[in-house]
Amino acid sequence: MVGGGSGAFIGEIHRLAARLDGQIDLVCGAFSRDPDNCRKTGQELGLDPARCYNSYADMMDAEAGLPAETRMNFVVIVTPNHVHFPVAKAALEAGFHVLSDKPATLNLQEARELADIVLKSGRAYGLTHTYLGYPLVTVAREIIANGGIGKVRKVFAEYIQGWLAGEVDNKQADWRTDPARSGASGCMGDIGTHAHNLVEYVTDRKMTHVAADLTVFVEGRRLDDDGSTLFRMEDGIKGTLSASQVCVGRENSLSIRVYGETGGLEWHQEEPNTLIRTYADRPAEIIRAGQGYLSEPAKSQFRTPPGHPEGYIEAFANIYLEFADALRTEGGVKAGMNAALRGMAFVEALVESSENNSVWTEIRI
Amino acid sequence: MVGGGSGAFIGEIHRLAARLDGQIDLVCGAFSRDPDNCRKTGQELGLDPARCYNSYADMMDAEAGLPAETRMNFVVIVTPNHVHFPVAKAALEAGFHVLSDKPATLNLQEARELADIVLKSGRAYGLTHTYLGYPLVTVAREIIANGGIGKVRKVFAEYIQGWLAGEVDNKQADWRTDPARSGASGCMGDIGTHAHNLVEYVTDRKMTHVAADLTVFVEGRRLDDDGSTLFRMEDGIKGTLSASQVCVGRENSLSIRVYGETGGLEWHQEEPNTLIRTYADRPAEIIRAGQGYLSEPAKSQFRTPPGHPEGYIEAFANIYLEFADALRTEGGVKAGMNAALRGMAFVEALVESSENNSVWTEIRI
Amino acid sequence: MVGGGSGAFIGEIHRLAARLDGQIDLVCGAFSRDPDNCRKTGQELGLDPARCYNSYADMMDAEAGLPAETRMNFVVIVTPNHVHFPVAKAALEAGFHVLSDKPATLNLQEARELADIVLKSGRAYGLTHTYLGYPLVTVAREIIANGGIGKVRKVFAEYIQGWLAGEVDNKQADWRTDPARSGASGCMGDIGTHAHNLVEYVTDRKMTHVAADLTVFVEGRRLDDDGSTLFRMEDGIKGTLSASQVCVGRENSLSIRVYGETGGLEWHQEEPNTLIRTYADRPAEIIRAGQGYLSEPAKSQFRTPPGHPEGYIEAFANIYLEFADALRTEGGVKAGMNAALRGMAFVEALVESSENNSVWTEIRI
Amino acid sequence: MVGGGSGAFIGEIHRLAARLDGQIDLVCGAFSRDPDNCRKTGQELGLDPARCYNSYADMMDAEAGLPAETRMNFVVIVTPNHVHFPVAKAALEAGFHVLSDKPATLNLQEARELADIVLKSGRAYGLTHTYLGYPLVTVAREIIANGGIGKVRKVFAEYIQGWLAGEVDNKQADWRTDPARSGASGCMGDIGTHAHNLVEYVTDRKMTHVAADLTVFVEGRRLDDDGSTLFRMEDGIKGTLSASQVCVGRENSLSIRVYGETGGLEWHQEEPNTLIRTYADRPAEIIRAGQGYLSEPAKSQFRTPPGHPEGYIEAFANIYLEFADALRTEGGVKAGMNAALRGMAFVEALVESSENNSVWTEIRI
Repeated sequence: MVGGGSGAFIGEIHRLAARLDGQIDLVCGAFSRDPDNCRKTGQELGLDPARCYNSYADMMDAEAGLPAETRMNFVVIVTPNHVHFPVAKAALEAGFHVLSDKPATLNLQEARELADIVLKSGRAYGLTHTYLGYPLVTVAREIIANGGIGKVRKVFAEYIQGWLAGEVDNKQADWRTDPARSGASGCMGDIGTHAHNLVEYVTDRKMTHVAADLTVFVEGRRLDDDGSTLFRMEDGIKGTLSASQVCVGRENSLSIRVYGETGGLEWHQEEPNTLIRTYADRPAEIIRAGQGYLSEPAKSQFRTPPGHPEGYIEAFANIYLEFADALRTEGGVKAGMNAALRGMAFVEALVESSENNSVWTEIRI
Repeated sequence: MVGGGSGAFIGEIHRLAARLDGQIDLVCGAFSRDPDNCRKTGQELGLDPARCYNSYADMMDAEAGLPAETRMNFVVIVTPNHVHFPVAKAALEAGFHVLSDKPATLNLQEARELADIVLKSGRAYGLTHTYLGYPLVTVAREIIANGGIGKVRKVFAEYIQGWLAGEVDNKQADWRTDPARSGASGCMGDIGTHAHNLVEYVTDRKMTHVAADLTVFVEGRRLDDDGSTLFRMEDGIKGTLSASQVCVGRENSLSIRVYGETGGLEWHQEEPNTLIRTYADRPAEIIRAGQGYLSEPAKSQFRTPPGHPEGYIEAFANIYLEFADALRTEGGVKAGMNAALRGMAFVEALVESSENNSVWTEIRI
Repeated sequence: MVGGGSGAFIGEIHRLAARLDGQIDLVCGAFSRDPDNCRKTGQELGLDPARCYNSYADMMDAEAGLPAETRMNFVVIVTPNHVHFPVAKAALEAGFHVLSDKPATLNLQEARELADIVLKSGRAYGLTHTYLGYPLVTVAREIIANGGIGKVRKVFAEYIQGWLAGEVDNKQADWRTDPARSGASGCMGDIGTHAHNLVEYVTDRKMTHVAADLTVFVEGRRLDDDGSTLFRMEDGIKGTLSASQVCVGRENSLSIRVYGETGGLEWHQEEPNTLIRTYADRPAEIIRAGQGYLSEPAKSQFRTPPGHPEGYIEAFANIYLEFADALRTEGGVKAGMNAALRGMAFVEALVESSENNSVWTEIRI
Repeated sequence: MVGGGSGAFIGEIHRLAARLDGQIDLVCGAFSRDPDNCRKTGQELGLDPARCYNSYADMMDAEAGLPAETRMNFVVIVTPNHVHFPVAKAALEAGFHVLSDKPATLNLQEARELADIVLKSGRAYGLTHTYLGYPLVTVAREIIANGGIGKVRKVFAEYIQGWLAGEVDNKQADWRTDPARSGASGCMGDIGTHAHNLVEYVTDRKMTHVAADLTVFVEGRRLDDDGSTLFRMEDGIKGTLSASQVCVGRENSLSIRVYGETGGLEWHQEEPNTLIRTYADRPAEIIRAGQGYLSEPAKSQFRTPPGHPEGYIEAFANIYLEFADALRTEGGVKAGMNAALRGMAFVEALVESSENNSVWTEIRI
């Protein structure tokens, strides 16, 4: 693991998720550029001190030199955004698979370079689009793929939070609002990309154009803390996507609604075990995670009987399981390099559109 | 009443709403251009056959000739859109107050003419933006006016239905999808205007610009059945507004969410007796219609104790009560001529923007 | 109308409900024992002063003497409970149909007498069990009657409010907590009977035994303000029923859930336009009022398109429509004399059980 | 771990929960009486084959003989009910702490014996009343303890499922409906006890009497699959508790609602991150897990930021963390021996009451 020292947020979540199903062991880390923090974190985690490295470069070198049965199998990247690319590059070039937090890189150019590196390396590259790990997201995709709502017409996607509605003075807020560490967009890069990814995953169609309006509401902030975009997708699908971190009182409200010619689907991350399916001429249905009437893949993502709520950590663990499975079977990963490229291209198109008076802008990877 | 003969929808709703509180009597009507339908409707309503007129022109003439204590007091217009303006004109010029279904006219130019006519007539002009009649809409406006959520930043408004997702062959669908009778926009003119009106009413700020994307999803339809727009308002407020009649399985889902610097509000028409208020640092509140902790104006709009749900007809009746009150007191009406102008200008700006590749377009009345 | 003068609550609700559909005219009243209040109420309602009577006895006499086409058609009783019986008796004996607030009488003995009087009179007797007027209550009964959830096993019924959690000093609270005017039970008589009635109506089965525990929580109060009972019904159905007026913060929360061998139904009065139907092996359904997939009787009880919420007043108006229809067609009424008897018998059994250490007690009419 | 071999349900849940926070390692097990199943389970879990024992007796012996730094620290019991007691006894007498699934024993007599054994052993005894591990259950208890809803008056508790509505032929259903393995009660023993435990924990008051009606709805079943009880608690609190496994379509619907003199609380296990708090004279509040406004103990039970739902596994993991903490600090455990005794006494009182025509029966430990 690179990143995730004391004071970080997402590193600990990764560890919970990786640990849950007992298939993945954390064996080494470069948790912080601060050697004390790094050592202390490793100690708390019960790691061999010799495998708590002071830099990711050290880690790649040292681990690559260990016997195959001992050395780490893949690298997890949980640093601020600007470090994602160099670590991924180093890991891949040292022969390790990579599972990276999103966004994959700081910008689209880096993402293209990374794609080349991945290709050359022959290693697996996964991106933790956590929300794809919810079982009912799988179900939504299946229903649409099976024609369950007919040809898709309209999509509403939204990811709104309130925690940056005022000035926030902590480590999390700090790097997220710094262009050098976060990239060209704040809110849209951080959470809007999750909504974009969810839209493309559930519909299995590509978003092609955006007409965006990004905003900085909190004075002095250097990156957008709110934004909305109209979008167009393949096959004539249209929609809107909003992301905001200034919606006071909202926690982590990611949702998607998709309407096709004969039906609709609605899913909300904060109540992830319910999927509403609407019809033209009969009652809407409340589809529930874990139920026997779901497909085998969807059921296999749920660990408990229906009515025993599973949440964010379990969804995250599903991403880990899928990645581990991909490593074993040479299969693909839901959100790998392609998602990485598409996410960066989405952000660049949004920023370009917003800077050009919301003109329709193509998403080009 | 002009319009509302057998087979019409909204006329009967008007009658229910007007009747509810026992302050308004229907005394005459030109319910249909079909004399049989007109006579039959009057008969069913127990009207004097002599006051069931074959045309609105006849009605204005005849009623104006009656003694003051007998003749109708105001005219209600419940026809398809294209007839709103000529009837209103005739009524105002004959000296009658007017309460019209929205949109006030077929286009902005007519609305401007109508404004002149209203001004000259000295009569009251009301527009039935029904949804403003819900008590918790009043509460939302009050909270914002009192600074309860701080300076407003972001608004999400939405009005989605599913009943036009396929080809629909009935009287309602028929005129709504005909430009000659409905105006330049279908879905946005019919229901998007309600969302626009609600946004301006609740925030007490004007929408100034739109960047819109209107769509015809059902092949062969001549007017938009779906649309979304980015918008900008006075004081730096931004937002999105979507309206659709092709969201399969959605009934009449009008909602508004407003986020300010210190709080937020969420209201859904389909659960109209609940208003969610969010805060930055304490639990969200579930504000309920009819409760003792509400303001006097808000309480006065609710007829029963809390927990006895009041709905659409009661909201509509509140619009009638307010109009009746305005006639008695020379007071204004929530949605009168100004709302009429603003609604038409909103629709024209949307259509213009959509036809110009979603370019930001000013709303000019 | 007898009762419903200024300061009363339910009389005005009756008038709203009766007026809504334009089929019923209020023509006379004995609104209060206070002549001034009576006259003033009549004046506000635009009644002929000559038909505002100082007592219900005067009203029966005077109206009976009017020509058939002028005199009132039926009497509505909206007084405190203890006056229901004498007014009903007087009206029926004077040849008028009766629509009475519930409970029909002060005790079961009176109810039996009333049943005889109704029988002899040949007049119609209706009881305003308002909640049966909701369209989805009709739907729930239909589904069960059609075997939609299989043989019924278990029922949960509940009616909880919070308005009497403390000492309340108003006219409404006053008579409701006075045994002489309210009857042998407070909370259970006032609202528990609605839940009982709903259970028997929806399942079309009789409740046969109760094991009850009634409580006075507010010191000094003379009648129960809370109670729960286990119950047994015909055909082996079991259940629980709770009613309370001390559940702080709850408004008017009447609900019923019924589970049979193959499915279940859940309905809540505060969200009356939604009925949840559960299945063993497929997703639960959200059945919605007004939808095209409902039966004709259920659709006919809804005045607006789906998604335009109808509430308590509309439900109440449906009771009026049904009563008016019964008068015209000699048909029965949902909640007439039989419901009156069963309601009183339910209350007496509850009180007897509660006084005897919750022993199982038969409900005998 | 004793129990939890292939085909078992709860053993795997325990392992997920124990693993999540990285504080507990599974080191040995007697997973099944079938040696093959036992060995295979151990293998899948990556255990040392030498520590996969063919019986719990072997395990106690062998582990007790290992050096202190190697041997297991505590025993987790996840077998069918009838084996809970003998395993706990063996473990405690061999000097190991015990964390047992509930119910602690097959009957109250065994529970009393166990209490003596625990006392003599000086070892810790924990019972996995999983639902106490939800952070908002802690919050509910705190609010009541702090007088936040005033003196408690009325409690509604419910735990309903539908999975045994028909005949079910699997390992889970099998032992749960067998008196020899499950105890004197089926549904009430299995899930009613969770509701009872929750009631006592949240209110911090003891339930003293029950008047119960237990039912076998599915023909041929030997233990209750449904039941309801009236109850009385210390300090004049009254309430109802229902548990059912024949409510078709309900998943795992445990809920509690508590009303006091000045407020109320409502919590539902299937939406565990929301707690509704009601007041007499101001809007109800939506209290949310993880929020900054909660107490430190409540916040410490939530691993992610608000809006990242945590569920059943996390609640279970909190039970493990608390037990681990108790072992380190000699602190108590939420649901230890006292809860064990009270749960068994509750079940025995229910059965006795139900067999005696629902007579009020004291709960005596």
